[in-house]
Amino acid sequence: MHAKPRILAFDTFGTVVDWHGTIVKEVGTLFPRLDAHAFAKAWRNQYHPMMQKVMRQELPWTKIDDLHRMILNVILEEFGLSQLNEQQRRELNLVWHRLNAWPDSVSGLKKLKTQFVIAPLSNGNLSLLTHMAKHANLPWDCILSAELFKAYKPDPKTYLGVLELFEAKPSEVMMVAAHASDLQAARSCGLQTAFIYRPLEWGGHPSVPVLMHEEFDLTCRSIEDLALQLGCS
Amino acid sequence: MHAKPRILAFDTFGTVVDWHGTIVKEVGTLFPRLDAHAFAKAWRNQYHPMMQKVMRQELPWTKIDDLHRMILNVILEEFGLSQLNEQQRRELNLVWHRLNAWPDSVSGLKKLKTQFVIAPLSNGNLSLLTHMAKHANLPWDCILSAELFKAYKPDPKTYLGVLELFEAKPSEVMMVAAHASDLQAARSCGLQTAFIYRPLEWGGHPSVPVLMHEEFDLTCRSIEDLALQLGCS
Repeated sequence: MHAKPRILAFDTFGTVVDWHGTIVKEVGTLFPRLDAHAFAKAWRNQYHPMMQKVMRQELPWTKIDDLHRMILNVILEEFGLSQLNEQQRRELNLVWHRLNAWPDSVSGLKKLKTQFVIAPLSNGNLSLLTHMAKHANLPWDCILSAELFKAYKPDPKTYLGVLELFEAKPSEVMMVAAHASDLQAARSCGLQTAFIYRPLEWGGHPSVPVLMHEEFDLTCRSIEDLALQLGCS
Repeated sequence: MHAKPRILAFDTFGTVVDWHGTIVKEVGTLFPRLDAHAFAKAWRNQYHPMMQKVMRQELPWTKIDDLHRMILNVILEEFGLSQLNEQQRRELNLVWHRLNAWPDSVSGLKKLKTQFVIAPLSNGNLSLLTHMAKHANLPWDCILSAELFKAYKPDPKTYLGVLELFEAKPSEVMMVAAHASDLQAARSCGLQTAFIYRPLEWGGHPSVPVLMHEEFDLTCRSIEDLALQLGCS
């Protein structure tokens, strides 16, 4: 076991906030006949392919707000909503700034904040993460975003960028995420890792939590559980 | 009068935190025979010349922590403290991460945070501003630093960088500072401006507040007063 880290960097979409539940609720209210679950899934499914286009330089640097909007324009057609005007599209695209936190996130982060520097390290752009923090009451110490490094996770530039900003040794930073691929990339850069189990990220019914990610330094049922495991109570 | 801004960007050293008082107190405790006021003044006096060296490209990009350290090495000699070892110098240099807020800052910022995005826009590096916020309990929504733009205020890149990150029109951002030069540069970029009167920035006895900066959109006696003038109570 390493010494305790001094900085905790959190993946946000799915790990800290419930993108699926928030989008299903908002588009379900706007368009009652829509299959809101399929719509949310379609929107999110194109997220990784679009970032990969940026990282393969098929697109110039493009922030997540703009990638979300490009995907939205396509899926509005697919779901028979092409009548939405510019103002309506812009407003709907900002749902990603208004995502709600998982029930344990705010209380867990408040505990962690007493002992650690806590920050998102998200592919979301800085304004998105700032507005999300205000909306969901996330008590970050600062906002770290892929936008600062002009590279998307899991590119090492993002994890190494945090080390450089804080003049930190790799083991002084712990990456916290609900996605193994993010943690594996962080670990390759020497960071500590904490896996958060989020079985409801894509909706559906909760399954029995099977905490099988023994490959990481910590495996947690929630951010509250992370705080407990790191000795904050 | 413009419409209300949506983002308030704060100069920090002198405007939000009391660098002079904090340094005088800390070095006065460490070295009781030292002229702590002269020491603090000497440290701060080289701040602008060093940043200008970076902006004239006589130095490569160098963060404030490192500029502070370069100045410290020189003044320790001048003040007869050259016996300090590496660890002591490093620790002393971090006093800039531990600056105390002016008495009105935290309460004023908390009020402003209910209606606006509030952020430092400081020449201090991101880790310095993050640690300072934790130390002084400054409730920023995000940390904006010259380091993100690789340019020091009053370079327009800093003010324009904020507009780009938030896709904001110039009048949607208000620069808040105790220094007219910072506000004049922000105004040249189209930002709104608020002057905060800080007669004790360089120590000494309070003078009668003469609020003479009518050239700016707002002139305030404190951050509490700014909150009042912007309708937050």
